[in-house]
Order: sequence, then structure tokens, then C-alpha cells
Amino acid sequence: MAKVYVKYKKGILDPEAENTKKALEMLGYNIKDVKIWKVYDIKTKDNVEEMVERLLVNPVIHEYKIK
Amino acid sequence: MAKVYVKYKKGILDPEAENTKKALEMLGYNIKDVKIWKVYDIKTKDNVEEMVERLLVNPVIHEYKIK
Repeated sequence: MAKVYVKYKKGILDPEAENTKKALEMLGYNIKDVKIWKVYDIKTKDNVEEMVERLLVNPVIHEYKIK
Repeated sequence: MAKVYVKYKKGILDPEAENTKKALEMLGYNIKDVKIWKVYDIKTKDNVEEMVERLLVNPVIHEYKIK
């Protein structure tokens, strides 16, 4: 079992996070920053790092960590 | 600053998680289960729980925790 945390690299725009920030500000909140991670919670005995690199992540735009 | 973990409730189908599982199996991996969380990493001094309930979560289909 492993948790894979995926997010856009610095310098890559994340429109969903940007829009979440804007929408919260329009509701009157004071927001410094919003980042969004996607977490894959995978139950398996196989090599998760290999899976991630083959299928789940695009190394050009994403960074990830496995816990 | 708060991290909000959002996922579908038990019993609600998550097609993205299902398809991730299928795709990994087609690559030859033996997968018991895949769940996907979305994590909002919000830098603010305002009330995050209120934001979540007003904007980020649909309580009919999502469960969440704030850390």
C-alpha cells in the first residue's frame, strides 16, 4: 500500500487551483495561495514507483512523492 | 494554512480511480484497490472549514478532513 502525491511543478500553471483561489476571494475570503495535490492511494504489492512513472505522472509538468 | 483532503464517500463510484486501477492492471500489475483524494493546500488565516462547506465539497457525495 502506498500513497502517491502528485502536483504541478513550480512554474506550471494550475488553472483549477487558480480558479479555486479566485472563487474563494469572490466569497470574501483573504487567500494567499491555493495548491492542489492529487493523491493516489494504491493497495498493491507491486512496485509503485514504476507504476507512477509509467502511467500516473507526466514528468514534464508534474512532481510527485511516494509515502 | 490548512490541508483539506477530499474524497468520494463509500458507495459513490469514482470513475477516475476505477479507470486508473484498470489501466494499471492492463500494464500487468496486481492491484487490490485505488482511491483518489484531492488535497487543497490553502494559505489563509480565515476559517477553512467554512470555505470547504461553502465551495469545495458537495456533502452528498464527498467526505473530507482538514489537517
